[in-house]
This record gives sequence, C-alpha cells and structure tokens, in this order.
Amino acid sequence: MASKVSVEEVNKLPHEDFIERFGNVVEMTPLCAASVSSIRPFDGLDKLYLAMSDFLDALPTCGREGILRCHPDLAGRHAKRNELTSESKQEQAKAGLGNLTEQEANIIDSLNQSYRAKFGFPFVICARENKKEAIINGLKRRVENDKDTELRTGIQEVKKIMLLRLKDLVEDRESKL
Amino acid sequence: MASKVSVEEVNKLPHEDFIERFGNVVEMTPLCAASVSSIRPFDGLDKLYLAMSDFLDALPTCGREGILRCHPDLAGRHAKRNELTSESKQEQAKAGLGNLTEQEANIIDSLNQSYRAKFGFPFVICARENKKEAIINGLKRRVENDKDTELRTGIQEVKKIMLLRLKDLVEDRESKL
Repeated sequence: MASKVSVEEVNKLPHEDFIERFGNVVEMTPLCAASVSSIRPFDGLDKLYLAMSDFLDALPTCGREGILRCHPDLAGRHAKRNELTSESKQEQAKAGLGNLTEQEANIIDSLNQSYRAKFGFPFVICARENKKEAIINGLKRRVENDKDTELRTGIQEVKKIMLLRLKDLVEDRESKL
Repeated sequence: MASKVSVEEVNKLPHEDFIERFGNVVEMTPLCAASVSSIRPFDGLDKLYLAMSDFLDALPTCGREGILRCHPDLAGRHAKRNELTSESKQEQAKAGLGNLTEQEANIIDSLNQSYRAKFGFPFVICARENKKEAIINGLKRRVENDKDTELRTGIQEVKKIMLLRLKDLVEDRESKL
C-alpha cells in the first residue's frame, strides 16, 4: 500500500497523480477521483470524502447502479480467479471470506445469484465492517428488500468502503467521520 | 484484441462480461459500460453507442471534466513509461506518435502542458482520425479556445474514440454511424 500523505500534499498533486492515488477508493472508478480533482484544495480528509460522496449522489440512477456493478461479488468469481483489486482482496480476506466452509461458500454463491437476478447489480457491503456471518445474514435480509432500497443501501456501503480506503491513504488528524 | 461478437451476443452477456468487454471503450471508465448494461437489449451497435453517449452527456460538469482527465496526454508520460492502455497504445502508434522527431516531441510536450494549465484537463483528440501533423495543429488551435468549448470538443472526441473502439468489438452490419 502507498504510504499516507498529508492533505496539504494531496492538494498539491498534479491531476494525474491524484487520480493514480485515489483511483480505486471507489472500486474500479477512477472517474470519481478525476471528477473531484479540480475541486481542490480540500481543507481536510472529510472534505475530500464529501466531494466524492456528492459526485456519487449527482450521478444519474443508471450511473449509481453502474457504480455497484463495478464491484465484484463477495467470494465470487473474481476472488476465485485471483482477479480482485488489491483493496478488495485485503478487505474480503479480513472479513474471513478466504476461509469459508464449503457450505458457507455455497450459501453465499446462491444468495449472490438471487440478489443479482432480482436487482441487476451485485450485493455490496463494507467487508471491513462485517465478518462472514454478518455478511451472510446481510445478504439473506437485504435480498428481500425492493430495488430502490438496495440501490440506496449499496451506495451507502460504497461510501463506507471509500472512507476507509481514503483513511488508508491520507493522514486524518482532524477527521470527524 | 478480443474477436468481434454480434449484437445478439452482446445482449446476452452477464453484466460482468459486458463490463469486461466494453470497460475501456471510454478510456479508464468501466462505469460507462456498467451504467448502460441494464438498458439492453440494444437493437444494433448504434443504440449501444447512443446509450453510452447519453450517459456521458448526463454526467455533471465535473464528471465530464473527469472523463477527459482519465485520458493520457498524447505522447505523454504514460506513453514514455509504456503505461498506456492497449487501446491507447495502438491508437497513438497509428497516428505516428511513436516516431516523433525530438523537435516534434518538444512541441507536443510544451503544448500539452499549456493546454492542461489553461483548462485543468488534458487535450483529447481521436488519434485514429488524425496523423501527428494534424494533432500538433489541433493542439495549437484548440489551446486558444475557452474552457466550455474545449470541454464540449473533448467529449465529442471521446465519443469518436468510443465509436471506433465499439466497432472493433461488435459486428456492425447495419451501423449508420
């Protein structure tokens, strides 16, 4: 992982370096960093986070669905093929998704498929805030919701993931989030 | 390059495969494919192109600027470090940007820098429709424009690049574009 930098340094980065550093705080979506790059200077990590949140909220509905679709299934095919981004790989491992029993793996596969079939986007949850049991329970519960609720909930989870990834990259002495 | 598929096959791809196939028709922006994936079926390549164009147009202004910022400078640092996406590498080579004289390289570097400094995003032009002389002339001319004009012109060029990349990936017997 890149070492942390101060907000002052973040504010001085050329656009290209800013996009390189923050290009995956929203999974597979360098556009998010690229779009807030010119809003600098930020006077703290929180402001960077809020600018990125605002960008996600300003996307058309299909764009917010697209944000979710850029996420891999938890313990899904990208994990099995070792094709996850390094951030996702660490987060899924930390949640215990690398050590599933065969039964747990089958339950998650089956719930992921039901979820995708119902909503047209994958189940997204902040793996760093949940262990595998909580993830399985979350899947069971959330697959019962309606699509609007899940689009909203999924984007909220994307923002939690984003905040934790930002905190890995930027010193946040004064963050209130 | 992946072999071409028919529109019928495109319409049947799971979301993940659709995103994998079309993830870079807009440079570094799998979100574009991810956002139109659920609008399928498309009854031709043109409709897929138009859906992606509509997505770009529906982005907030900062998002359209972000789209341009996800593009590399022509003959810029990504090219020098061999870090271009395979699509950009082929396109830049075809335009003759791999065989610049030292003088041409210096002119392009200097114009790219002026352009970025003035607008806050890189100069984007469809390299497959222009040879190096036309690109240098384009840079000289367009750096004189105002920011709104260049944001609009840049996005038009992104769409030209996108159409050619789509035609590389999908059979287009009936395309009128």
